[in-house]
Amino acid sequence: MGTARGACNEGTGAPFTFAAARVKPLPVQQGKLMTQYDVLCIGNAIVDIIARAEDDFLRQNNIIKGAMNLIDAERAELLYDRMGPAVETSGGCAGNTAAGVASLGGRAAFFGKVADDTLGDIYRHDIRAQGVAFDTGALNGHPPTARSMIFVTPDGERSMNTYLGACVELGPEDVEEDKAAQSKVTYFEGFLWDPPRAKEAIRETAGVAHANGREVAMSLSDSFCVDRYRDEFLDLMRSGTVDIVFANEDEAKSLYQTADLETAREALAADCRIAVVTRSEKGSMIINGSGAHTHVDAHDIDRLVDTTGAGDLYAAGFLYGYTKGMDMEACGRLGALAASVIIQQVGPRAQISLRQAAIDAGLIRG
Amino acid sequence: MGTARGACNEGTGAPFTFAAARVKPLPVQQGKLMTQYDVLCIGNAIVDIIARAEDDFLRQNNIIKGAMNLIDAERAELLYDRMGPAVETSGGCAGNTAAGVASLGGRAAFFGKVADDTLGDIYRHDIRAQGVAFDTGALNGHPPTARSMIFVTPDGERSMNTYLGACVELGPEDVEEDKAAQSKVTYFEGFLWDPPRAKEAIRETAGVAHANGREVAMSLSDSFCVDRYRDEFLDLMRSGTVDIVFANEDEAKSLYQTADLETAREALAADCRIAVVTRSEKGSMIINGSGAHTHVDAHDIDRLVDTTGAGDLYAAGFLYGYTKGMDMEACGRLGALAASVIIQQVGPRAQISLRQAAIDAGLIRG
Repeated sequence: MGTARGACNEGTGAPFTFAAARVKPLPVQQGKLMTQYDVLCIGNAIVDIIARAEDDFLRQNNIIKGAMNLIDAERAELLYDRMGPAVETSGGCAGNTAAGVASLGGRAAFFGKVADDTLGDIYRHDIRAQGVAFDTGALNGHPPTARSMIFVTPDGERSMNTYLGACVELGPEDVEEDKAAQSKVTYFEGFLWDPPRAKEAIRETAGVAHANGREVAMSLSDSFCVDRYRDEFLDLMRSGTVDIVFANEDEAKSLYQTADLETAREALAADCRIAVVTRSEKGSMIINGSGAHTHVDAHDIDRLVDTTGAGDLYAAGFLYGYTKGMDMEACGRLGALAASVIIQQVGPRAQISLRQAAIDAGLIRG
Repeated sequence: MGTARGACNEGTGAPFTFAAARVKPLPVQQGKLMTQYDVLCIGNAIVDIIARAEDDFLRQNNIIKGAMNLIDAERAELLYDRMGPAVETSGGCAGNTAAGVASLGGRAAFFGKVADDTLGDIYRHDIRAQGVAFDTGALNGHPPTARSMIFVTPDGERSMNTYLGACVELGPEDVEEDKAAQSKVTYFEGFLWDPPRAKEAIRETAGVAHANGREVAMSLSDSFCVDRYRDEFLDLMRSGTVDIVFANEDEAKSLYQTADLETAREALAADCRIAVVTRSEKGSMIINGSGAHTHVDAHDIDRLVDTTGAGDLYAAGFLYGYTKGMDMEACGRLGALAASVIIQQVGPRAQISLRQAAIDAGLIRG
């Protein structure tokens, strides 16, 4: 436990078997197999448009609170007309995780589809400027880059309204096999089951990753998303396509259609090698396949501003620690710290250096 | 003192003389001349792109710290390439002031030129969603909506790099005379002397305002801007085109080319009816033409995050109070409060209700 399986490929110089014939040979440097990236993230490339709103606004506009509500172009226009003054920031769950890993000092890459437009330019700039390798080709023409209108209520909870736009065009042709082969962990979001062909890209990437001795992680993303794709998500776990699962409490319960967290915990232990259940201010629970589990406290905060990106940044902290060989509890603490930073600001991309925050908290050495 | 001169037009039902023949008749409701707006703001309509940077970055890129650096399209591209992950928010000095007045519960209008593009849509949405009347026609085609890349250093100071884009097309044809006639105060930014024809729009608007018994205010904007247009700014004041002047300490000193604040204070008292000099943590000084001046302390803050918009929001608070008939000290306190809110967040548009903040601080009644 606590050491990324993929990491054992580093420095062995041992001959390497390519399970899938179509996987390109990896670049070899001084006899070593290169591990170019700690974490490869795959997700919907979305620009967030964030505004404050009262709970009444959500009710009046039939927005499910705390959820990711999928919307079409017409509803996007309607909601934007009704939305208050907003700020724009790059977002998207897995993109946030990639940015978080990079902010912690990890090596991250990202696959996701933007369009060749202003929001797409902003998205590409922000993720690259954070040091994340991002080379997915932009879509020419319609639909435009995805946007999510996020309403943050006075309790800090975020309710997302996502127009998928160009994300619907992500497909297996966007898989960069060298990055999948050279990343210790490939991490993707369950939201990728919404666009039509992204799941094909995921299955292909996971195949390349496993063929190269790497690990695959996923986030269950949203309890309604779990409800839409429960059987497929369970199959991903039970077939071994996914090794590590991130879920919040609602998602874990939704997956197994239970109101009881213990039931969900036991089922998760049976279905995947590592599962992490985040529980907001109650902390998080790290479960391994042997049934053991570790509790990690939430990190203290001064003031809850906006929960957007909390789960994504927890995953970033956890995966950074995991790919650096830290033990489960240390991974969870880094996740809790990164989440605590992000919920004290507006938007899901850290406005301060997470690495510095982790050093200041004594969780990593400077 | 303390009562907007324009306000005396309300409720008199007196016959009204139009000094300029081309001024359209004002709508009259139940025998009263309508005062539709408290403050009409005119300025460059700019989307801010804000990122953190170290002081070294400013030096390496020849960015004058704390200033507004004008840049062309080529340099905009170069700096964006070098800029870290950013957030986008509507900005522009006078636009920020309009948004601030509206957030305080005042009635605000805005003139400014965006292009018919994504950033222009964002700009129009944000200012209208704040309740500001904004109807300036968008520019079709090139150049695109203005943007300012703002680097915030660890001390919280902002250094702006502005590509004026569509703002260069603002001209007298964009003056909505009814709004100028119906606003208690017309407020514009000195930065409008950079684009070629905006000054014509200002002179025309000021003429309409004064012809309708209203007042005209300006911000000196930036000490380098003052250096570019010193004689014209002094002429605006001395000719009575401008009644109220907002300046920070550097701008006031630059205007009179003196290192001595007292010298600047005396000159301001001679040159305009009311002058307000903001002095960051040292508070502000309100000077009237009779030579009397009032000191107002800065409002306490917990943590300085980003000074972007501090002066703009001071003006918003001051002008809100002024158009509501408050005394000078109360106006200054509202300005200090609004500025204190804005420097504790990223970006120049308040993410909380300024009205609520002013009520909580006991400065206005709920």
